[in-house]
Amino acid sequence: MRKKIVVLGGGTGNFVILRGLKKYDVDLSAIVSMADSGGSTGILRDELGVLPPGDVRQCLVALSDSSRLMRSLMNYRFENGNLGGHSFGNLLLSALEKVTGSFEKAVEEVGRILYIKGKVIPVTLNQVHLKMILDNRKVLEGEAEVYLSKEISNGYKSIFLEPYPKVNPKVIDEIMNADVVVLGPGGLYTSLIPILLVEGVSEALIKTDAQSIFVVNLMNRTGQTTGYSVSDNLKELLKFLGEDIFDNILVNTSKPPLELIERYKEEGDLVENDMKNDQRVIESDLLGPLGTVDKKDLIRRNLIRHDSKKLAKEIIKIVNNI
Amino acid sequence: MRKKIVVLGGGTGNFVILRGLKKYDVDLSAIVSMADSGGSTGILRDELGVLPPGDVRQCLVALSDSSRLMRSLMNYRFENGNLGGHSFGNLLLSALEKVTGSFEKAVEEVGRILYIKGKVIPVTLNQVHLKMILDNRKVLEGEAEVYLSKEISNGYKSIFLEPYPKVNPKVIDEIMNADVVVLGPGGLYTSLIPILLVEGVSEALIKTDAQSIFVVNLMNRTGQTTGYSVSDNLKELLKFLGEDIFDNILVNTSKPPLELIERYKEEGDLVENDMKNDQRVIESDLLGPLGTVDKKDLIRRNLIRHDSKKLAKEIIKIVNNI
Repeated sequence: MRKKIVVLGGGTGNFVILRGLKKYDVDLSAIVSMADSGGSTGILRDELGVLPPGDVRQCLVALSDSSRLMRSLMNYRFENGNLGGHSFGNLLLSALEKVTGSFEKAVEEVGRILYIKGKVIPVTLNQVHLKMILDNRKVLEGEAEVYLSKEISNGYKSIFLEPYPKVNPKVIDEIMNADVVVLGPGGLYTSLIPILLVEGVSEALIKTDAQSIFVVNLMNRTGQTTGYSVSDNLKELLKFLGEDIFDNILVNTSKPPLELIERYKEEGDLVENDMKNDQRVIESDLLGPLGTVDKKDLIRRNLIRHDSKKLAKEIIKIVNNI
Repeated sequence: MRKKIVVLGGGTGNFVILRGLKKYDVDLSAIVSMADSGGSTGILRDELGVLPPGDVRQCLVALSDSSRLMRSLMNYRFENGNLGGHSFGNLLLSALEKVTGSFEKAVEEVGRILYIKGKVIPVTLNQVHLKMILDNRKVLEGEAEVYLSKEISNGYKSIFLEPYPKVNPKVIDEIMNADVVVLGPGGLYTSLIPILLVEGVSEALIKTDAQSIFVVNLMNRTGQTTGYSVSDNLKELLKFLGEDIFDNILVNTSKPPLELIERYKEEGDLVENDMKNDQRVIESDLLGPLGTVDKKDLIRRNLIRHDSKKLAKEIIKIVNNI
């Protein structure tokens, strides 16, 4: 029987891992953060009152088996006028949400149009916003503000979703029936933790018999996770999980050229592996091609990022050993 | 062999006739005016420099065999914010035009997505605007201005497309290979004449061996065709055709209730049939259901309009007699 892999995350990290895993004969589900509030997604939420389409769109495109044209269309951004900055795929999801009266149906319909391999499941169907209260009492309102903040490393009092959301019941089913669940890669405060903040998700991750994999980010983000080692990344996540659930921790070993590290010093530093002796840690070259922007899929991504194929290969090795 | 029917027009008239003919086992092509400059279409032309999607969208939806959901989506109009007023189908056509670099490819692709029965062919692929110079020297710029003018009935010096467009070569092929060509129903100055103003179209209509049918409008538009009889409508069209090509002229006999005629007196009067003795005239009840707006297709339409089924039935009778 095909193994069931459930990937949790949001943003570019999710896109990279799904695109790699799509090539294998596995049963794939993507559980997507619904906290995005920036750019085209933020405007659509404000003006139309829809649920955030951006992260879902990226997952749908990652899993799509449709023509390159359809994938380019989904990621196409209008350049001028009042439409400027809107991604077409976001408009499609929002229009379908309006026509059907349901974001979930909209996601299913786009999945059908794009011939996706697998499922894309919003972690909640409530209209939520991410909030963070920093030690200096500053309040960050919305994922977009959290994403841009450089003060999180100085300490925060709390991070939460408002209003406190109900989990999409399908999410719990997916996690409970999974053979493998994968967390990451992705922004700690902008993609991974916002999923764990939804009621019941952490509990399901603890209860499930699935193997759990944590894919550690390649780089920290300055002011967010400055100087975080592998164990720091893990510890931070465990605060929200409540228990160390991970059977495997995937860590990249390949260093980008010094020149590139220098160039991106202000954005962030490399995550150092201080858990080499932990038996769960799997070290491998997971580094993607450097410094090129993938025009085919036209998405915002870091220049230092995971390689879809290498990452998928390591995950499939684990899957095949179950 | 299936008979080939080519319908020329634009706007709601085209929609009504195509939707009726779609139900029959015929080879259908819609040749669409490309002069539209109003509403969502006008904004997209101005801001993105795309070709006008509106009339093409209506034809695609009329010929679509896809789910009701997809058709509703195509005609869905955003209600708020900067997207307010834009029809989703227009955005789809414009985004695809940008991604593929070709409006024709965009039309083909949407045709594929909507499982259309038949073909939708823009009469020209040049970026044109309709202009009209009135006897009082006023210049009407763009189809939207022509549509709103109430001074055309007082006389006009000229009507033309600017810049003078090249015909889409497929249009000539379609007309030459047709068994039947149908002109109308549709706005004389806003849909029908703008097609005849494209180089080569009238010549092809004269040359072709196809039977030609003129579907006369039910109502005149005040200030545009005030008090026009059937023969006035025909004469006006023949100015641009150059020759009387029509083998059949379809005229409605059913009168809407007096109350409704009174209510719409300011918009326009009924077209009177002064050609009852002309052997080419076919009189029939062609009146559509009154006073209801078709929510399923959500398009702007006159409350007094042709009936898709009745109109198609009369056309098919002619087709079957060839």
